[in-house]
Amino acid sequence: MAQEGAVNTEQINGDSSKAVTFISFKPQLVLSKAEEAIKFYKAAFGAEELSRVNHPKRKAEQDLPLIICADLKIGTSSFLVCDQTDDLPLTVDGAGLGFILKLETEDVVAAVEKAVEAGAVADGEVTEVEGLCGGLLGKVKDPFGFVWVIALASNKCSETEA
Amino acid sequence: MAQEGAVNTEQINGDSSKAVTFISFKPQLVLSKAEEAIKFYKAAFGAEELSRVNHPKRKAEQDLPLIICADLKIGTSSFLVCDQTDDLPLTVDGAGLGFILKLETEDVVAAVEKAVEAGAVADGEVTEVEGLCGGLLGKVKDPFGFVWVIALASNKCSETEA
Repeated sequence: MAQEGAVNTEQINGDSSKAVTFISFKPQLVLSKAEEAIKFYKAAFGAEELSRVNHPKRKAEQDLPLIICADLKIGTSSFLVCDQTDDLPLTVDGAGLGFILKLETEDVVAAVEKAVEAGAVADGEVTEVEGLCGGLLGKVKDPFGFVWVIALASNKCSETEA
Repeated sequence: MAQEGAVNTEQINGDSSKAVTFISFKPQLVLSKAEEAIKFYKAAFGAEELSRVNHPKRKAEQDLPLIICADLKIGTSSFLVCDQTDDLPLTVDGAGLGFILKLETEDVVAAVEKAVEAGAVADGEVTEVEGLCGGLLGKVKDPFGFVWVIALASNKCSETEA
């Protein structure tokens, strides 16, 4: 437990002009038929399913589980395919289709602040969300109309939540 | 120039049920103000600009160059920010906003065939396009309304084309 160096205090909170580091960046497709879409992306583009988180509640009208999000990989990049829920903000209305850019970071609050300073509009407060693999979640709309979800980095998502 | 191994003929053309490999996968944001958007993504999310290709023609009404696409990186993933042109198919009408999923592969024709077999709808023929860093380009719309552009893999894009 020897302390060989001083704690770096330069990056501790407060100043939102400091560097905010993003761990991951993923497009997030929001659909009314995530299960079907996942099958299609595997068949059409050889997508590999890395993980999937189901919602505890099933869809009322169907036997299929409600998919909070599945993480699919093509090449070296991954994207999320998610069933539409009340929590998910959509940039596209009609046809139940939507598209979100998801960022993961260690400091959601600072990241949202920095985005807002740069001209984005916060969509609600940063909130703690259950079931989305890791708590804090902020949403901003950029000046061009795209929605970015900023979430706490989480590499310990359970494969499925029943 | 010694040839030490036989050419692998197993993957040569014809059978579209064979594996199609994608080298990269990127979301592609289409805007009417790509230059501004790039500045914003740098300021708000610390995006790093990897490369940029300008269109030989400038925008008629402005002095800003028309950006065919800039490749931005956040975390380990990258995305493209592009000015709207006649070539770019959009999933979103109104407000000049759009969103495309871009795939790069060594075999555009086979990739489009496989996607169509799996249920996508081809949007026109595979065509040779100048200025888009590498020739062949196919477009498909998936059964859920998202547009995928399938392009020839190209790592030799010039930084800017004047």
